[in-house]
Amino acid sequence: MKLLLRTTLLSLFCLPLSKGYTEDSSYHQYIDPLIGSEGLGNVFVGPSTPFGMVKPGPDIGTHSNSGYDPDLTKSLVGFSQVHVSGTGGGPKYGNISVMPFSGNVESIDQSSLRTNEQAQAGYYATVLTKWDIKAELTTAERAAFHQYTFRDTAHNAIKIDGGFFLGENPVPDAREAQQFVGSEVDVLSSTQIQGYSRIRGGWNNGNAYTVYYHAELDQPCDRFSTFKGETLYPSVKEQFDSGEKTGGLCFFSDHQRKTVKMKIGISFISEAKAAENLRNDIPHWDFNLVRQQTEQKWERLLSRIELDSTASVEQRKMFYTGLYHTMLMPVDRSGENPLWTAMPYYDDFYAIWDTFRTSSPLLTIIDPERQADIINGMLNIYKYDGYLPEGRSGNTNGRTQGGSNADIVIADAYVKNLRGVNYHLALKAMIKNATVAPGGNSEKEGRGGLPDYNRLGYVSTDYVRAGNRTLEYAYNDFALATVAKGLHRMGEYYRFIEQANNWQNLWRNIEHDGARGFIMPKDVNGKWIDEIPCDIKDGVATRVSYTPIAQDWPNCVCWWCGFFYEASSWEYSFYVPHDIAAIIEKSGGSDAFESRLNTFFEHNYYNVANEPSFLTPTLYHWLGKPHLSSDRVRKIVQEHYSSKRDGLPGNDDSGAMSSWLAFHMIGLFPNAGQPYYLINSPQVKSATLHVEGGNTFKVIAENYSEKNRYIVSATLNGKPFHNTWINHSEVIKGGELRLKMAAKPSNWGEGKFPPSLTTTQK
Amino acid sequence: MKLLLRTTLLSLFCLPLSKGYTEDSSYHQYIDPLIGSEGLGNVFVGPSTPFGMVKPGPDIGTHSNSGYDPDLTKSLVGFSQVHVSGTGGGPKYGNISVMPFSGNVESIDQSSLRTNEQAQAGYYATVLTKWDIKAELTTAERAAFHQYTFRDTAHNAIKIDGGFFLGENPVPDAREAQQFVGSEVDVLSSTQIQGYSRIRGGWNNGNAYTVYYHAELDQPCDRFSTFKGETLYPSVKEQFDSGEKTGGLCFFSDHQRKTVKMKIGISFISEAKAAENLRNDIPHWDFNLVRQQTEQKWERLLSRIELDSTASVEQRKMFYTGLYHTMLMPVDRSGENPLWTAMPYYDDFYAIWDTFRTSSPLLTIIDPERQADIINGMLNIYKYDGYLPEGRSGNTNGRTQGGSNADIVIADAYVKNLRGVNYHLALKAMIKNATVAPGGNSEKEGRGGLPDYNRLGYVSTDYVRAGNRTLEYAYNDFALATVAKGLHRMGEYYRFIEQANNWQNLWRNIEHDGARGFIMPKDVNGKWIDEIPCDIKDGVATRVSYTPIAQDWPNCVCWWCGFFYEASSWEYSFYVPHDIAAIIEKSGGSDAFESRLNTFFEHNYYNVANEPSFLTPTLYHWLGKPHLSSDRVRKIVQEHYSSKRDGLPGNDDSGAMSSWLAFHMIGLFPNAGQPYYLINSPQVKSATLHVEGGNTFKVIAENYSEKNRYIVSATLNGKPFHNTWINHSEVIKGGELRLKMAAKPSNWGEGKFPPSLTTTQK
Repeated sequence: MKLLLRTTLLSLFCLPLSKGYTEDSSYHQYIDPLIGSEGLGNVFVGPSTPFGMVKPGPDIGTHSNSGYDPDLTKSLVGFSQVHVSGTGGGPKYGNISVMPFSGNVESIDQSSLRTNEQAQAGYYATVLTKWDIKAELTTAERAAFHQYTFRDTAHNAIKIDGGFFLGENPVPDAREAQQFVGSEVDVLSSTQIQGYSRIRGGWNNGNAYTVYYHAELDQPCDRFSTFKGETLYPSVKEQFDSGEKTGGLCFFSDHQRKTVKMKIGISFISEAKAAENLRNDIPHWDFNLVRQQTEQKWERLLSRIELDSTASVEQRKMFYTGLYHTMLMPVDRSGENPLWTAMPYYDDFYAIWDTFRTSSPLLTIIDPERQADIINGMLNIYKYDGYLPEGRSGNTNGRTQGGSNADIVIADAYVKNLRGVNYHLALKAMIKNATVAPGGNSEKEGRGGLPDYNRLGYVSTDYVRAGNRTLEYAYNDFALATVAKGLHRMGEYYRFIEQANNWQNLWRNIEHDGARGFIMPKDVNGKWIDEIPCDIKDGVATRVSYTPIAQDWPNCVCWWCGFFYEASSWEYSFYVPHDIAAIIEKSGGSDAFESRLNTFFEHNYYNVANEPSFLTPTLYHWLGKPHLSSDRVRKIVQEHYSSKRDGLPGNDDSGAMSSWLAFHMIGLFPNAGQPYYLINSPQVKSATLHVEGGNTFKVIAENYSEKNRYIVSATLNGKPFHNTWINHSEVIKGGELRLKMAAKPSNWGEGKFPPSLTTTQK
Repeated sequence: MKLLLRTTLLSLFCLPLSKGYTEDSSYHQYIDPLIGSEGLGNVFVGPSTPFGMVKPGPDIGTHSNSGYDPDLTKSLVGFSQVHVSGTGGGPKYGNISVMPFSGNVESIDQSSLRTNEQAQAGYYATVLTKWDIKAELTTAERAAFHQYTFRDTAHNAIKIDGGFFLGENPVPDAREAQQFVGSEVDVLSSTQIQGYSRIRGGWNNGNAYTVYYHAELDQPCDRFSTFKGETLYPSVKEQFDSGEKTGGLCFFSDHQRKTVKMKIGISFISEAKAAENLRNDIPHWDFNLVRQQTEQKWERLLSRIELDSTASVEQRKMFYTGLYHTMLMPVDRSGENPLWTAMPYYDDFYAIWDTFRTSSPLLTIIDPERQADIINGMLNIYKYDGYLPEGRSGNTNGRTQGGSNADIVIADAYVKNLRGVNYHLALKAMIKNATVAPGGNSEKEGRGGLPDYNRLGYVSTDYVRAGNRTLEYAYNDFALATVAKGLHRMGEYYRFIEQANNWQNLWRNIEHDGARGFIMPKDVNGKWIDEIPCDIKDGVATRVSYTPIAQDWPNCVCWWCGFFYEASSWEYSFYVPHDIAAIIEKSGGSDAFESRLNTFFEHNYYNVANEPSFLTPTLYHWLGKPHLSSDRVRKIVQEHYSSKRDGLPGNDDSGAMSSWLAFHMIGLFPNAGQPYYLINSPQVKSATLHVEGGNTFKVIAENYSEKNRYIVSATLNGKPFHNTWINHSEVIKGGELRLKMAAKPSNWGEGKFPPSLTTTQK
């Protein structure tokens, strides 16, 4: 079935395209939005432009994060216009739901099973089996295009529902649940309807946001009903906002055409702005043109990294879908911010804790102008909301999971000399993170537990998530110090480079499963904590031993209340990205560390499905044994990634999982916040990077095959290259990194250790 | 001139009124909105219903707080629909400006000098001299009514300006300045126009708020122009929001009537809600009916306290205008909150630091249901925004000046047994104030410097406003302890009743002008601070001695950055409202304290224009010498209050000054947060309070005259009454407090000391 769909799809690309690329050079055909739609991926499957504000897609039930659920036995309840991709936690958005239906029923609730689902770049289609309606979606940045083909011309209708949203919970103020605030509908003519939906809450417990719409049909409704709450009002054209759910039903005459087109402009500002967005984005009725334009937008970005022709279709799908996933969010809402006018404005940082590690660095390669734009958007958030975002959605900062990781995004840009960013302003924003506690807003922004951290050098058990907060703040401080030094702000540099060692204050010299030294909880008086409170049973608090594999959340305490966020001490005790040499030493030296790493992977302490261990498979590089990193990475990819629908091992988190994979496929891996990429065995024969300034950088794996998977030597622009890492400045100069591959590792990399704070300061 | 206007005005009240009250029992006639319009009062002079959301009024220039400026040589630039009253700091609101004009000019800027100004309850009128247009305004809760009488029927027009607002500053993000975000205009028909204005900033540096309008005219515009920025678009009916200023000009045909009526519905939700508000509030075209209904709303409230017939017109004007000023804000925006749906919702707490002392207690007497409603609104703000408001405007908490004084409003309600408030939720909100530092949001809400306060027992000089913060937090803690004890939460009670003594940690045993002991700055190590940094001159920081009259703000540091907020140590060292006995003792005993008080008033350390010293003139009560309090109060009233336009000595601050006066006129004065009123010499022969449950409480000053101004004995319901204070519970029972007045003080009050923490705990 799937194969059949693919064939149909490929034939579409034979259409002449205006921008002059041919099928041969077409990369967007390898985008498969359904990768990651099953399992934990939670990806959005509908059409989207890169960083596009509008993401129309199917809502299967009401409780999926992306609107989508692969289960074909669950009903599709509508196609709403705004979604997120890859997220966990409480759902967000799912606003302005549109549903075609047939029959004589005058009912607000309309749902159907679906079949024949297709998803490609800029296109989604399915058939609603209840009425045999084919629904097709494409989209521009700020306007969606729906096309519905009914079985025949009789008794057809379309519902537009301003009351729908994802994650509804009847409990008022339920944590992480979206809650209804208000809505409106206004039938302007037989072909125009507009209104809005105002929703608060969701994953980041955000303030109310308002999604305005202006929809136009290519043929008139014979009659309209509007609704408020559960009541239908035939021929009533307007429902004002009384805090109830409203929408409209458009009933077509039996003389309509079978295929009905509907364009929906969306805005976060007003209905009139939504209409303007529609006029701007889609000033015609050509569904295919919109689709092609969106394909071309993707094509322009995907073609920045070209895999050589020997890469398999499976690999191309994994790789280009990976790039695609990385560019779905944050979304560009410049000119669409109801809070202030400064531009650029981006929303849906969801969350930087996930994306700083690989998504931001990947974007810096593919589209440095965009990355600078995003950072400038973050700085505007700092300027007008007071703090840089960590998570942000619906125009509200929140939530923080660990550190103030925007610091690392900024440092990463700074060390890679990303142009167009006011780094003095950025440093100010970082210093605010590091010095002004967010107090009661610590779920929202800034550094919770900062008073402890700045007084004691660690976050004590007086605060939740004290373990990963301490670790992340230490690395955030390293990032701050990096930028401060570059800007000759030596006062800040000396303070924060010292604080970058703060993780050591929670390093406890205990042994577990053969490994020595772990990040462990310490109270405010400096006393190590051996037990943690858990359930209260029969009135007595039970306590459990705190070991490096102990996990207090979510059983003993709430999800956000453990010592670590979403990982164990085994995982987090590797999280010192700026000083791997120091943890090697503290772990007992190279051999002990190698053994510790092996235990980590072999005893299942490693969690492929989450971000804290993103760097860990490559830590062998700091032992001078990059081939062991290569082995680990290859095994992880083979076991956990694929081009199948369940081809992502965890929540994609705005492309975090996807970008981790994409980097590893081309043999480079960033240590975000630092200027280099680790060189690791590529998984393709060659990759060509079209980097800023028109330069081309090639990574060539000479003699590469499934068997010849070890780098045995390297040259850069023809000269021997001994380091197992390469600076970003070398990459963007353009050139050729030629890696000689063989079936057995050589001593390449031996005695070469990527930078560590301890060793560079020596 | 003024006399003439008054005569004209009084004749208006001979109209038959539907609710059956006659001129004899009419109190609203004594409302003079112009009291406090000159000098520092900053009151709003246009019409308003009690706590009404809509306040249409003249804007004289663009930088007055209330829109009004008494200077007749300054131009009137329009009549906008939303204002605040009595505030200082940066202006707020001034949205949706309407301006009639005549002539052939097609220009956006229209302004005129004015003459023949009239202001009464529910009515404002003036003549625009440039075109000889009479403009009249009245209002309902959520819709305003404008009536313009042109000189003749030719070449007339009305401008509706969604781009106007008060306090515009070309500097982006200027502190306390309102800043433009966006606007829209939509001409629906020849008689209907709607749109919105979105503004951020202002005094509380608030988030963007949106004021939507829907305006209707009683006769058609011959043609319309809309504008965006500086450009006029003849016959273009819609301007969408592109972040520019928009509005519309309605040009009448020469066949119009001379008098044009315009009704404007306002909403913070949407244009359609604004239209609904208009339909609800003013479903007709009878200007006088709206005016009369608004008069009646005031009448119902003012008649809760009746001054006896011997009170002079001047006294009535002062008193009833005082009550009126107290009920202009906060404004009832239930159903008009774009952030959440919970009701009630009130906005424009501006600020509780001003209003907790006398405004809230006055309202608890006049309209306890309303006060409970307001507190429930505050609790909703805690529930959905995280903290109780201290200041709040435009749907955003902010700013804090000193303590978390909502605590005192709650305690005041609790000790007065105000029904309909969830005090358990209220205690939770108070505990949050007292335990969760607002961190980077300390300008907005909560208690800045709380980490110091909770660790050291005082706010150190590491934080700004450390002096009044410490004092206010101590009293806030007393309020918290009061409620905790009542709810049998003894753990909290013991902690916070102890903390109520924290003011003592900043009490320094130094002498100044004959007085001993002052609240003085202390650093984080417990060291008293003798000097404060001031200007930097020639690269060297100058320092000035810190004495009890030193004022570091705004010359040495910013307005908000001094050790005290808006007052000196002489003033603040009396601010221990829960333990006057303790400051008497610390000052050296009764004689020393009496002398200190005398010095305070006689050496001009007292500032009548601000709230910190509201209680101080009555502190003689705690010396058993209430007649000295009476002398002080009488002198202050005589010297600083009147029924003239400059009849308020300071910013009225939502009626703070006015309610201080009103209480003193009837011989009762509250110590907010505690259950009693001090009994002081009334300034009228009798006052009848119609309190909750239909009871009547009379304060009778027997034998009162200008000469017989001392209370020499008292009876309550015929029985001798020796205390110089009376509990609220006695007042609401109903009854008669009969005070015997004489020309010389007696020993009444001797040996009777109102409650103090020190003495009640002994």
